Formats: sequence, structure tokens, C-alpha cells
Amino acid sequence: MSLQNPVFIPGPTNIPESLRKACDMPTIDHRSPLFGEILNPARDGVRKILKSADADIFIFPSTGTGGWETALTNTLSPGDTVLAARNGMFSHRWIDMCQRHGLKVEIVETAWGEGLPAERYADILKRDKSHSIKAVLATHNETATGVRSDIAAVRRALDDAGHPAILFVDGVSSIASMDFRFDEWGVDVAVAGSQKGFMLPAGLAIVGFSEKAMAATKTATLPRTFFDVHDMALSYEKSAYPYTPAVGLLNGLNQACGMLLAEGLDSVFARHHRIAEGVRAAVAAWGLKLCAATPDVYSDTVSAIRTPEGFNATDIVTHAAQTYGVAFGVGLGEVAGEVFRIGHLGSLTDVMTLSGIATAEMCMADLGLDIELGSGVAAAQDYYRAHPPVTRKAAA
Amino acid sequence: MSLQNPVFIPGPTNIPESLRKACDMPTIDHRSPLFGEILNPARDGVRKILKSADADIFIFPSTGTGGWETALTNTLSPGDTVLAARNGMFSHRWIDMCQRHGLKVEIVETAWGEGLPAERYADILKRDKSHSIKAVLATHNETATGVRSDIAAVRRALDDAGHPAILFVDGVSSIASMDFRFDEWGVDVAVAGSQKGFMLPAGLAIVGFSEKAMAATKTATLPRTFFDVHDMALSYEKSAYPYTPAVGLLNGLNQACGMLLAEGLDSVFARHHRIAEGVRAAVAAWGLKLCAATPDVYSDTVSAIRTPEGFNATDIVTHAAQTYGVAFGVGLGEVAGEVFRIGHLGSLTDVMTLSGIATAEMCMADLGLDIELGSGVAAAQDYYRAHPPVTRKAAA
Amino acid sequence: MSLQNPVFIPGPTNIPESLRKACDMPTIDHRSPLFGEILNPARDGVRKILKSADADIFIFPSTGTGGWETALTNTLSPGDTVLAARNGMFSHRWIDMCQRHGLKVEIVETAWGEGLPAERYADILKRDKSHSIKAVLATHNETATGVRSDIAAVRRALDDAGHPAILFVDGVSSIASMDFRFDEWGVDVAVAGSQKGFMLPAGLAIVGFSEKAMAATKTATLPRTFFDVHDMALSYEKSAYPYTPAVGLLNGLNQACGMLLAEGLDSVFARHHRIAEGVRAAVAAWGLKLCAATPDVYSDTVSAIRTPEGFNATDIVTHAAQTYGVAFGVGLGEVAGEVFRIGHLGSLTDVMTLSGIATAEMCMADLGLDIELGSGVAAAQDYYRAHPPVTRKAAA
Amino acid sequence: MSLQNPVFIPGPTNIPESLRKACDMPTIDHRSPLFGEILNPARDGVRKILKSADADIFIFPSTGTGGWETALTNTLSPGDTVLAARNGMFSHRWIDMCQRHGLKVEIVETAWGEGLPAERYADILKRDKSHSIKAVLATHNETATGVRSDIAAVRRALDDAGHPAILFVDGVSSIASMDFRFDEWGVDVAVAGSQKGFMLPAGLAIVGFSEKAMAATKTATLPRTFFDVHDMALSYEKSAYPYTPAVGLLNGLNQACGMLLAEGLDSVFARHHRIAEGVRAAVAAWGLKLCAATPDVYSDTVSAIRTPEGFNATDIVTHAAQTYGVAFGVGLGEVAGEVFRIGHLGSLTDVMTLSGIATAEMCMADLGLDIELGSGVAAAQDYYRAHPPVTRKAAA
Repeated sequence: MSLQNPVFIPGPTNIPESLRKACDMPTIDHRSPLFGEILNPARDGVRKILKSADADIFIFPSTGTGGWETALTNTLSPGDTVLAARNGMFSHRWIDMCQRHGLKVEIVETAWGEGLPAERYADILKRDKSHSIKAVLATHNETATGVRSDIAAVRRALDDAGHPAILFVDGVSSIASMDFRFDEWGVDVAVAGSQKGFMLPAGLAIVGFSEKAMAATKTATLPRTFFDVHDMALSYEKSAYPYTPAVGLLNGLNQACGMLLAEGLDSVFARHHRIAEGVRAAVAAWGLKLCAATPDVYSDTVSAIRTPEGFNATDIVTHAAQTYGVAFGVGLGEVAGEVFRIGHLGSLTDVMTLSGIATAEMCMADLGLDIELGSGVAAAQDYYRAHPPVTRKAAA
Repeated sequence: MSLQNPVFIPGPTNIPESLRKACDMPTIDHRSPLFGEILNPARDGVRKILKSADADIFIFPSTGTGGWETALTNTLSPGDTVLAARNGMFSHRWIDMCQRHGLKVEIVETAWGEGLPAERYADILKRDKSHSIKAVLATHNETATGVRSDIAAVRRALDDAGHPAILFVDGVSSIASMDFRFDEWGVDVAVAGSQKGFMLPAGLAIVGFSEKAMAATKTATLPRTFFDVHDMALSYEKSAYPYTPAVGLLNGLNQACGMLLAEGLDSVFARHHRIAEGVRAAVAAWGLKLCAATPDVYSDTVSAIRTPEGFNATDIVTHAAQTYGVAFGVGLGEVAGEVFRIGHLGSLTDVMTLSGIATAEMCMADLGLDIELGSGVAAAQDYYRAHPPVTRKAAA
Repeated sequence: MSLQNPVFIPGPTNIPESLRKACDMPTIDHRSPLFGEILNPARDGVRKILKSADADIFIFPSTGTGGWETALTNTLSPGDTVLAARNGMFSHRWIDMCQRHGLKVEIVETAWGEGLPAERYADILKRDKSHSIKAVLATHNETATGVRSDIAAVRRALDDAGHPAILFVDGVSSIASMDFRFDEWGVDVAVAGSQKGFMLPAGLAIVGFSEKAMAATKTATLPRTFFDVHDMALSYEKSAYPYTPAVGLLNGLNQACGMLLAEGLDSVFARHHRIAEGVRAAVAAWGLKLCAATPDVYSDTVSAIRTPEGFNATDIVTHAAQTYGVAFGVGLGEVAGEVFRIGHLGSLTDVMTLSGIATAEMCMADLGLDIELGSGVAAAQDYYRAHPPVTRKAAA
Repeated sequence: MSLQNPVFIPGPTNIPESLRKACDMPTIDHRSPLFGEILNPARDGVRKILKSADADIFIFPSTGTGGWETALTNTLSPGDTVLAARNGMFSHRWIDMCQRHGLKVEIVETAWGEGLPAERYADILKRDKSHSIKAVLATHNETATGVRSDIAAVRRALDDAGHPAILFVDGVSSIASMDFRFDEWGVDVAVAGSQKGFMLPAGLAIVGFSEKAMAATKTATLPRTFFDVHDMALSYEKSAYPYTPAVGLLNGLNQACGMLLAEGLDSVFARHHRIAEGVRAAVAAWGLKLCAATPDVYSDTVSAIRTPEGFNATDIVTHAAQTYGVAFGVGLGEVAGEVFRIGHLGSLTDVMTLSGIATAEMCMADLGLDIELGSGVAAAQDYYRAHPPVTRKAAA
């Protein structure tokens, strides 16, 4: 596996040079004032990227999975009911976590490739007159299928039903890459990770809590210590941690937020959309289809590409790694073998993306698929030429 | 705060150049075979450092606190009783975690500065004919007091009582710095962290499970997902993780183990002892006393130094940071204000240590303590000269 | 200018991760034995890469231009005559340096795009019965035109004439990328730089002297101190330098040699040839011609590509930098505006190269050239697929 | 040799973290506008540090020795006479270089340990009615003896004699550490290097030329190409180099200048003086003498310390390296074996300095000198405590 080629997995992403250096810190005393100069602006930066005025931001030395656990254990009690749609591997895993923590899950089975069924959420919530449902889980971007869901619609479903359930949103593969509106959408707990839109190594669970979510912590009885947000909040008052923080990653997070906000969130989202559109143009030129059912749910951070029936899509990923030293993502769960995935989030230029598209072409041709070499590249080139980037001030 | 001076906190330690570089990796695909080439030898290396033949090693993107939670949640059920001594801040916190997870704790209050009272453990275990105690907690090295306890004696207490309780050992600030014998001491779960003897940034909980501990996971009903060792074990069979691993830190861990084993564990322990003895010679020259009550419990990784009555020891730490850009540790909990701590673990030379001793002298003099400048330095110089290092092959 | 895209200038090259880290060293004492452990194997490694049994290797903190000056000033005296062909910008500059140092130059004007005219050298040398020509200059690879010359033929010209002139070879953009045979070709002084085949930052002039060249230093009267090889040789006996060496770069050079020799020189050359052939396939697919007149002189490290008459080739380079953040090389001297150059030396994968080809296509199309998007990419893909690399053990 | 201990050689210095990272750059196109954004402010920064309004600043990929050669070859012609004092190894070497370049040197032999004899310069210059002396060489800080000379006095000697000779000043180990006044002192060529006060790795010769020196280049006939300032000046007009520049080091230089100017030159000089005074207090406490004859010539960047007669001072350096992994400087030339040197320039804290002093004490005691352990440390501690730093904003 080459260390020189870019990676095209849907996270961890390629890490910009400046963030590599920000994370690579000598040891400082995490109880000294210097640490606060890292922690506090990092939390402020995350809050701005979530588009929230006053969400409580917690950052755990963990991963997105730990972020899910933070959401559940701090706000719910054993036996509580949560409402969740299963439309991909990551929503599936979150549901599984709920069940392992003794929660009841009202599962809305949804085709993999479709977005969250807000109207079905609406029905269920309206019928739940007793408000037995304590929380609604929503995966903003299903990394397994390349599907982005409409969180505003989920909020409307709650509001229309006058339902008080807490709204959890998994934004691990969307936040900092695609538009996310914590306050406007009435999100109660948002979960992100360092290794996606923040362009850092894995190792941080980044979580935002609304005032309502914070209130729920008072009655929640699921056991928690490592992921306890109150311990964290108390320590944050002293610009400290209840245990040893991952200082270098936090320093990287602070700088990543600074880079993203300096570029402008709209520019960041437009940049991701442009890169993604080039990939989708290539897919169309190849005569292939996305796993995502309709354009309104196309993800700007990852594309899951269906290969012809009878072909094992995972072979593309294996072959790309072995023969060309390039990493793509395999299909997971229900779509294992049916799709391969191109991650196109974080710090990625059009030029880098073209090399990924060219590699995918070679792999598919090598494995006998009827793909015209250069066809996807040409389609993406066309798109990129016709849609020059808003700014070249991309991540360095 | 200078980034040039060494740190003298009891972790995170000064990071050797080579480990800084090992952790600072470009993104690789954590589902590719290359990842296995990092993960598998890292786990093997940890096992050797634990002195175990076949402990199951689990490494979470977390911290030592997460390691404690891993120990509890994977092997115990709500309402279970654990036996624990409270002789410092970290044993106190672990007890608190037990209670928050619905465990009953039989607490053996012990003076801060003393080691674990194995004979009192023995009494209690002998009286527990019904074996209601499911686990015994033992903090090998109390980082708050600079006290090392006798784990072999705790094992004897269990064996003498014929008691089947699981033995948990917190070795966060001992493992890889002081002798630790997982198999010989019959440890069931050992907890370590990346940021102490392994000389890495914080961000990894490193845990070893005995066969008996693994068996206990089958009946344990405390909820767990992020810290579930079975999920981890299943993924390890494919050289993978159940979620995104901290690849750079694992790469660092692999190299750290290689460095430590190449140096030889006996040399590593002797190196720590030598550095510690120099610090203790300085303390004696200053006419001060350690918090650790007797020489048999002196820690080779951290010294908590008592200052005269009426003096606020925390001022030394604040002053050192502000005036000299040097980080020491404050006193915690019951000994807050009474002690300050010099961490002397990990990658630290005699020369670096002398600068820490010299700084402590300046601070104490600046704050009005009756300390002869150079006196502690001279005592440590004497010791270091008389006890040349076994080898200069220390961490680079 | 993106820091993420690979560069396609003919040096400095993309630097492999491991060499970035090797160069980034903390300060060590360059008079300590540790320095010898860097210097001596670096010199040995260079000697092997030159394919010499006992050339004296000198490494100056300088660049290839300093290497030229080292060659001249250590072996020649004011008024001496040298024979040189001018077939590109770099041979032109070396001739200029000779003249500025008071040497007479017998210039053989040669079309830019052609190799060294060995037969004309032969004629001149045969006519020089008095051996007034003291040295012959030969540029192995003209970086300006992408032309590789036949050094063995130059040696034959000397031998056939029984002429004792010293043979200087500029191998700056060939050594460590293309076959170079110091001993077999009877090279007397070879000049290389750190920033080409050695894949390091600029900053080292790397020079090999034959026994005959060393003998010539005894009578040479051109003034020299910084570039004096005797001062250097005397210091090398003590594994030291006559002034402060560039330790980090030397450490990088040592590791670069280790990497290249571990890969095997034949594999290194084959790897460069494969990458270059892909680029040439793309050029042919575009319907364009190389500056290099005939296939026997095609360079495997850089291709200078002629654009249609009336088109300013430099615009491609400017546009690529501004619009796509990619660096190509401009045409220099006589071919300024007529060619643009794609550097394809050092640590470069097929995948990276495809992104360069794709970028060139976009630029040419953007600027109105009649180029079919994807055509060059497809041709290169075809070549790379049909010619899998000997090994994937390329530079990491 | 430990990579963890600070170095105490008089250059290269300990490199601050931020400059390590600034130098460690990925490859950029040195012909792109981005390069100008590095080069131009770096040159401006150097000019400010030289305290010059409009000196021409040239930066060669070379070392201080190359800077000397730049000074000579660009302004003088074979047979020209220069006036120079020999009061240490570096003035000796510069004189040697003059002679090797065919210059006549009027040598003023001066005791090693004394400063430049301005009054003898004055006599000679006054007697030189024919102005056969074309240049005066002055070593601002003799690194071999730890002696700083009075350049203003040399300027007065020239002015009093009404002598038009060019004034060359070697400021390699003074510039950016001690006060240097290019314009006020009428310096014509100043020579510095990256690896001293600029706190970078070796690899840059940094040179300032006055208008008068630039005028002299028009008639100077010493051969030069690599070090030709006109080639450099022409390239600088296009923000480029006549050959491949050392981009990473230039980036480091730009940042180093920024750091130094942000700290304020007066603070930088005061910081060096404070550190040096601590070392000198230790030397006095040991009962030893500096090589520098009188306090007015004490250098703030390096102290050469005389050991008792009959003792080989070089043993201290060897022993420190072997036993304690610490680098000091040996005595050179006339004072070889008589002195050892402690470098105290660049990025060095009081705390780091104390570890060097403590190490020197241990070495001297180990080798049988009658040194009281801790005595030098205590003297330096006293000084540092009594003279707190102006600011803690030192180099990070």
C-alpha cells in the first residue's frame, strides 16, 4: 500500500499538511493555562461549524461510536424507547448499541439507498400519545450507502406531532463537509468524529448537546463515567479534563475549525459538492448507478457505486489496494459485494479525485467490467472545468 | 509555557523523537493488510511487557479511565460487590466509577502514602465465605502519592482465602516503567495507558484480560458497546477494529514496545529506578519527606514531595510554570496543597532530571522555603555519577 | 498552490514520507561519532548508486551548480580548454560557468532535442594532438529538453582518440533514476544533487571523483575553498566536515540510498521507465511530439512536450498552477514557449502520474488546444495496466 | 548520544519546535508565486535583524564559509590586499581562504582571547596612504574563544584614516543573538549562517551587501558563479533563484525572523545576555577562567572555559558525550586542549542551561578536577532568580 497516493475511503480522510503538524505536538501540561488556549477555541469552533449559538460541546478521546454512547447514556434510562430507521450499516449499528444498553428500539426498516422516512417517523410519533418514545435517532449521512437524509423533515415530524422526544443526529460523515444546522433543525445531540470533515486522525468523539439534552441528563440512569458529560462540563469550567485529554488532536481540531471557518462554511460545502459531482459524472459515464436511490439523497462525502449483478464489487477494492496502492471502501452489510465506495470528503482536490477515478477505471477494466478507460475521467474533467472552484484557498 | 523544557508531570511523558514520528502518520486504510502489520505486533509487544504468555490484549481509542470502564463493564453485573482500598486519588476515582455503574464497593480506607493493605484484603476475603465479592481492585502505582503497592501480596491474599474474585490491577503509571508480572501475579485485568511508560501521547487505553476474565464476560450484564471486548476480539481476528482505530497511536505503540523490548525490560526498570533515586536523593538533601510512607513503597515513576506545614505546595507548581516554564504535578485530593509531584517516568535522562531538580530548588527558594540552591542537584549528581546507567541505549 | 497535489516539475521531486522524517532531525553534534554513522554509509550508498568501486564521494551543502563548480575548480587551471556541447539550458549554463572561471570552451553547438554528438567529440579529440583540451563536459540528461545522452559513446570518443582529458558528467537529473555507470564509462567527475533521484529537498551537491580526477587536483590552480575536495577528504578521514554539515539532509541521503539499494537499482530504473512510458503514451494520444528528437534519447525523468506553433506553452504551466494547483515545468532558453515539461522522476506512482496527465489535458483544453479529454489518461492507463510494476515495494 | 538532551555546542543550536516544522515542507514549485511569499519576507526579515535600511540580502544554499567566499569573490581581485587580525580559529580560517584565493593578507597577530585590535588597524590604515588595502576583515564574535569584538571601533579606525577599504564582518555566531548594526557601523558585507542565532539547521549562508560592496562587484575579477551576487540579484527580481533554492530552510528563515522580530531584538539580545551571565557565574563559582581576556569582550553566545594547566580540556567534551549524552564544544587551534566551550545561543532556556552546567560539573568531577558539585548550578540559579527574563515569550 503506497503512502503517497491519496486515500478514497470515506474517512479517515487525507490529512492536510498543516493539520498533521498541529497534531504532532510535544507534551504540554494539560493542567496548564496553555491547554485552555487550545480547548476553548476548539469547542467554540465546533459550535460554529454545528451552526449553534450555545450548544454544549464535548470532546472525548474516543470515536464516533463513543459519541453515540455519549448520546444514549447521558440522556436515557434502561427500558426507554427510541425510534430509529435502519437504512444502512451505521444506523444498524447504532440501533444495536441501543439494544445492548437495554433500550427498546422501534425500528423503521428502510431500503438501503433511501433516506430517513420522515413521514413514517411522523406517523409513529403522532400515534405515540403517551410519549413513550424518549428519543429519535437520525443518521444524517449513511456512510454505507452514500445517502444524506433530511433532518429538517425529521424535526418537522416531531414538531407536527408535538412530540417531546430528544433528537439525536449522527453527523459523523456529514458535519464539517455538508450543511448541518443544529439550532435551526432543533437537534438535541449531534455526534461527529475527528477523522471525517475535520480532516484529522481518528481519536476524538465530538458531541454537541442542546439545553434540552442537558436537562435530560439529570434523570437519565444509564451508567456512564468515561462518557459522562457532567464530569466533562465541570472540568471544562476550569479549562481541563476529568482525565488525560488527547492534546495534540485537540490542537489539530482547533486549527481545523480555524481553517474551515476561514474558508467559510458555504465554500466548504460547495467544495465538497463540486468534488462529489465530478465523481457522480464519472459514475454516469461508466454506465453505473449509485446505491443512493434518488438525486435528492446523494451524499457529497461518499458515493456507493453499484456494480453489475453477478460481479463482486469488493474485488475492486482488493484489486485497487494490491495492484495500484489505492484505498476505496467496500460495501457493508446488506450491500456487501454489491457496491464499492469512493470517499470524497475532507481535504481533496479535483486533481486528486481524478486519480481516484482513473484508478477505479483501471480496476474495473482489469476485472473484466465493460468500462471505457478514460471515460469517467473525461466526464469529471468536463465537470471540473465547467465549474471552477469558488476559491483556491482550500486546505493546505 | 516553554515547549523546550522537559515536562515533569507524571504523564503524559516527554515523547522520544522516534515515537513522535511514528505517531505522525499519513492516513492509511485501516481495513487494509498494512493495518494488521501495525496492530498485531503492537498487541504482541504489550503482552510481553505485561509478562504474560497469553493474555488477551485490547487497545481502545480512549484513556486509562476507559480502561477501568472496560474492566468493570465486561466482567461484572449491576449489584456485584468489589473490594477496593482507597489510598489516593486514582483508587478513589476507580471506586467512584464502580459506584456509578451500580456496583457495591467494600472500601478499605487506607492512609494516603501507604500501599495497599494486603493483610486487610486477606481478612475480608477470608470472611467472604459466600464469595459475594466478585472482583478486587488494586492500584499498582498510586500516581497521586507516589506509592507502589505489592500486587503479589494481593494475589496471595486471594489465594490464601481460596477466593475466586477477579483481580483488576490499575497499572497505568507503572506498566512499562516498573516490573509488572501479569501471569506470575495472577492478574485478571491489567489497565495501562499510552501516555506513561509507553511514552506516547494520550489516546489509548491498553488492557490485558486473563482467560478467567474473558470467561467472566459471558455472564457480565453491565451495558457496554464501545468498550466491549468481544466486539474487539472478533474484529482482531480479521486484524481490524469494530470502529475506526487510532492508527498513528497504534503505530507508535508498536514502535514503543519494540524500543522497550530491545532495551530489555530489566534495563528499562533499572533506568527508571536510577532516575528516581536521584530525585529522592535531592529530596533528602532538601530536608523534605516523600508522601510515600516507607522506602518499600517508593514509586520509581513519580515522587510526591511533602512541603512544610503551612506552605501551599501547589504554589510551587504554579510558580514553576509561570516563572520557569516547567511543569510539575500538584497534589490531589487529600494531599492537595501538601505535596507537589515530580514525574520521572518514560523517556528521561539524568541530565534532564537535573534541570527539573534545579527548577524545583529555584521555585522553593523564590517562595521562601529554606532550601539551599544546588543542594538537591549535588545530591542527585552524586548518585548519578556513582551509578552510571547500565546502558546508554535509552530511548531516542 | 495546493500542498496536496503532487508536483510534476523535474525536481525537486515529491518527497517520500520516510525521507521527510529522516531530514527533519533534532540538532546533533556534528563532531560526535553519531555523525560518522550518518556520513559514512551515505557516502558508501552514493558510490554504489554511481556503480563505482572506489570513487571518492564528496557531499557539499550546496546544489548541482555547486557540484559543477567543484568539478571545475578542483581539477582545472585558468586558461585551460574544455570541450562541451550545448544542447540545452543546463549544458549552456555549465559552459557559461567555465567561461566565468577563465576557461576556454570549445563549444559544439547541437540542436536542442538531440543528444551529445559523440562523433563530433571524437573528431575534435582526434585533432587535438597536443592535448590542449583538459576536460570534456557531458550532460547525461538535459533537463530542459528531456534528452538523455550516451556517455559510453563519449568515453569511446576519448579512448579512440587516446585522449587523456578528464570526463565530467552532469548526472543531476539522471543519477538514482536512470542507469549510470561511473566505472564502466570511465567517468572522472560525476555531479548529482539531492533533489532529483535521491528524492530529498535541495541542498546537497553530490560529487564523485575518480582517481584520475583526484590526481588532477594537485596541479589545478583555480581558486577554491568552500568547494575544495582536499579539505573535505581530510575531514572525512575523521568522519567530519571542514565546516558545518547539513546533518538532516545527509541523514536523508543515507536513508534514500538505503531505500534505492533495497529496491534494487534495476527496479528503480524500470520503475522510472514505466512511469515515463505512460507519460509518452499520453503525449502520443494527444497528437503532440516530444522535444527529444528520437526515442533513443527519450529521458525517463522528464518529458518536454512541444505544443503547436503559435501557442505559448508556458501558458499551460501558469494555468495549471493558478487553476488546478499543479506544478509543471516551463520551457527554458531556446525552447521557451515551445515546450512544457512534465517531470516524472523520484517517488511517483502510476496513480499520481495519471492525475498529472489529466491536469495537463484540462489545461490544454481550457487554453483552446484541440485535445480530447481523457485521451492521454486512457493511453497511459492502457500502458500501466499492460505493464504492471515489477514490485510494489516503492518508496514509502 | 541522546537525542533528548539539549546541545551546548556553539551552533547548530537547539531548534525550536515551530522552526523544525517550518523547515519540514513538502515540495513546492520554486518558480511559483508561492516561493516569493517565502523568499521576499525572509530577505526583509534578515535586513531588519541586521539593522539595515537597504542592504542587499543574499541567501545561498551553503554555510558561513560560503558566505565568506561570497564576500571575497564578489568584491576583490587576485592580488588585492586585505587587512585581518588573527585572534581565533575562525579568523584564521578566513585569512587562509583569502590566501587560497590569491589575496595578500596583512595579518595582525592577536592573542587568542582578545578582541580585534582596532587601534592597530587604525595605525595600519593610516599608513596605507596608497589605499592598497582593499578590504578589512573583522570577526564580530570569535566562536573559538568566546570573544566579541568592537566593530564600531573598526569602523572608526577606517573613518579616522579616511580609508576607503571595504569592511567585511563575520557575524556568523553573533547576528540574531547579539547586537549588530549594519548601517550604523558602516558594514559593507555581513556574513551569517542559518544554524546560529536563526536557530535553524545548517544549510544557508546569509549575506548582506552595502551599496559600496555592490559597487565593488563591478570591478572584482575573482572567479565566481555559484556565489555570484549579481546572478542572485537578477533572479531575486523575479522572486526566484539562479538554481534550485533550499525552500524549506528559507521558509524556516522567514519564520525565524518573524519570531525574533516579534520578540523584539532588544529582548532577544537581553535573553542571550541573561543566559550567558548564568554560565559565567557558574564558571566563576568553579574557580575557572574564561578564555576571553576581559569582560568587555565576553561573548553572549559562547563561553570558552580554561581548565587547569596539565588537564586536557577536550576530555570533558568526550566524557560528556559518552557518559551523559551531552554535547559541548572542544577547544580549537591554539587553545585546543586548554579550553572547552559551552554554546549558549539560540533557543535556550535558563532551565536547559542549568542542565548543561550540571553536566559540566559532573564531567569535571569525574575527571578529577576539584569542582564542588552543584556550585556552578547554584551560582547560575542565583543569577537567574535575581534576573527574571524580560518576557516568557521566548521561542516555541
